[in-house]
Amino acid sequence: MSCWAIGIDLGGTAVKAAVVSLQEGIVLDRSVPTDTSSGPEGIVAQLADLIASLHAQAPANLLRHDFSGIGLGAPGAVDTEKGTLSYPPNLPGWTTFPLRGYLESALQERLQAASPVFIENDANAAAYGEAVYGAGRNFRDFLMVTLGTGVGGGIVLNRKLYRGPSGTAGEIGFMIVDFEGPSIHAGIRGTIEGMIGKERIVEYACRLIRENPAEGSALSALCSQDFSSLSPRHIERAAKEGDRLSLAVWERVGSILGVGFAGVTALMDIRKFVIGGGISAAGALIFEPAYRQFIRSTLPSMHDGVELVHAELGNRAGMYGAAALCFV
Amino acid sequence: MSCWAIGIDLGGTAVKAAVVSLQEGIVLDRSVPTDTSSGPEGIVAQLADLIASLHAQAPANLLRHDFSGIGLGAPGAVDTEKGTLSYPPNLPGWTTFPLRGYLESALQERLQAASPVFIENDANAAAYGEAVYGAGRNFRDFLMVTLGTGVGGGIVLNRKLYRGPSGTAGEIGFMIVDFEGPSIHAGIRGTIEGMIGKERIVEYACRLIRENPAEGSALSALCSQDFSSLSPRHIERAAKEGDRLSLAVWERVGSILGVGFAGVTALMDIRKFVIGGGISAAGALIFEPAYRQFIRSTLPSMHDGVELVHAELGNRAGMYGAAALCFV
Repeated sequence: MSCWAIGIDLGGTAVKAAVVSLQEGIVLDRSVPTDTSSGPEGIVAQLADLIASLHAQAPANLLRHDFSGIGLGAPGAVDTEKGTLSYPPNLPGWTTFPLRGYLESALQERLQAASPVFIENDANAAAYGEAVYGAGRNFRDFLMVTLGTGVGGGIVLNRKLYRGPSGTAGEIGFMIVDFEGPSIHAGIRGTIEGMIGKERIVEYACRLIRENPAEGSALSALCSQDFSSLSPRHIERAAKEGDRLSLAVWERVGSILGVGFAGVTALMDIRKFVIGGGISAAGALIFEPAYRQFIRSTLPSMHDGVELVHAELGNRAGMYGAAALCFV
Repeated sequence: MSCWAIGIDLGGTAVKAAVVSLQEGIVLDRSVPTDTSSGPEGIVAQLADLIASLHAQAPANLLRHDFSGIGLGAPGAVDTEKGTLSYPPNLPGWTTFPLRGYLESALQERLQAASPVFIENDANAAAYGEAVYGAGRNFRDFLMVTLGTGVGGGIVLNRKLYRGPSGTAGEIGFMIVDFEGPSIHAGIRGTIEGMIGKERIVEYACRLIRENPAEGSALSALCSQDFSSLSPRHIERAAKEGDRLSLAVWERVGSILGVGFAGVTALMDIRKFVIGGGISAAGALIFEPAYRQFIRSTLPSMHDGVELVHAELGNRAGMYGAAALCFV
């Protein structure tokens, strides 16, 4: 049986949407700036427009097959049963809104046909995308971590999403690895996100460079000017050129991630880790120290079968996963 | 339908076994010193003797009902499918041994009837005992932590044991909360077990007392004599009498536990915690700081429904849980 779906990744700055064929993956996609000007109902209208236009453009050969529905990954707390989205970060004017119901009604009107909508937390959708189409497809069980502005996560157990009793599972970024340490983020001390979220990496690099002026890091000029002129990409490039302080930054990022993975293995017995998000572009600079730290941080009996792999779908994972949720 | 089973908790010092009625719980139990003198086969013989004697003593009214089998909780790595027990701590002379098969054969010979044996890790068995007969019976999902010489754990999801892909899940004691800290245990830095295992609590108390001689703790004499003369029970009593340094010890134990629980909630969305083991006798001295630290260590969205409760079955949880596994 062949079928297709529309997968959407609703973000604070862009809405990315794709026509996804079960067999072939993404066959068509579009991205538009998120309309944050008129609250939830504005978003519903924008989503309905986008879906209608993708529907209209879907290739004729796909239209002969079953349409499985619309999958939507969104930031914030998603109640997959009630179809609500609560307090999405970066989307002003929301509290708890029945996004699925409103979107289904708008689509009924627009397309003159019932279109089932599945909504899911965006980090979960990305993990599920990797599970079905990406780096997780050979793993029954894995944790996906997304390294970016924040540190997000999603868990796949027995090839299905593990959402937890109230749907908020997977938040590896809020595991605590340094409970008496100096780093405080979102009011909490020593979380992984508070130590290796994008801005914290830059902060740490600048601190290291200022504290070691004799080293003459390739990044000194950028740090002494202004914090905001330095990005993880600079630190990545400098590290690849051998800059010792930049290498030390990634060593620390990887170590903290490895400590977190050790906790995941101890608690859940998950031994496969898919690492994605913009920061993961640093690749081996992060993965190698993460693996070494994992080994140092676990009993030998926990080492069997451990794998850390790079995510494969980049910023399309959310669209893939949202669509794949319709195929279940 | 009524039925009964025999539940066994195989430990390094004692084998505890009970006749358990599905409805009435433990109706008869015995404890004998573990025979560690002749390896796995000695244990099998000892278990078969114990089971045969309990069988012989089971009340006549029970014998009219179905016998569901023998449940056995054991320390170390248990493969519930293969029925093997590997490297049990405190049981010398074991590598990996097919305990279930040997025990079933011995029982066939002894009882002249097939007796199905279920084996399970002891911390999981204790968690399952609390789930069915104890403090977890009103929780669909919880983590049980056992505070003793080590810090063990078991996870119940949707009223079933969560064992993880290879059967080693639940090891909250090996989550890391202080990855650069001074405490190293089993070669790993900053694990929960390495900070609040029984000996570490005593060590910390002695350090605190030596570093604050002016305080005149009620425990000073015990610490200055000899490390080993101090026990958590002393620290508990002194704290209950208001000894400031002893209170600080439990404050720290609770805080570290609260940090661990925060990680469990972030990762697994589990919000119920059952706290057992000998050290948990300190009760509110641990639970209150643990709860406060949990609140400090989590986002407000993670606070809904959080409960920390004392285990109810004490050192009978393992027998209860092992038997309950036969009723599934």
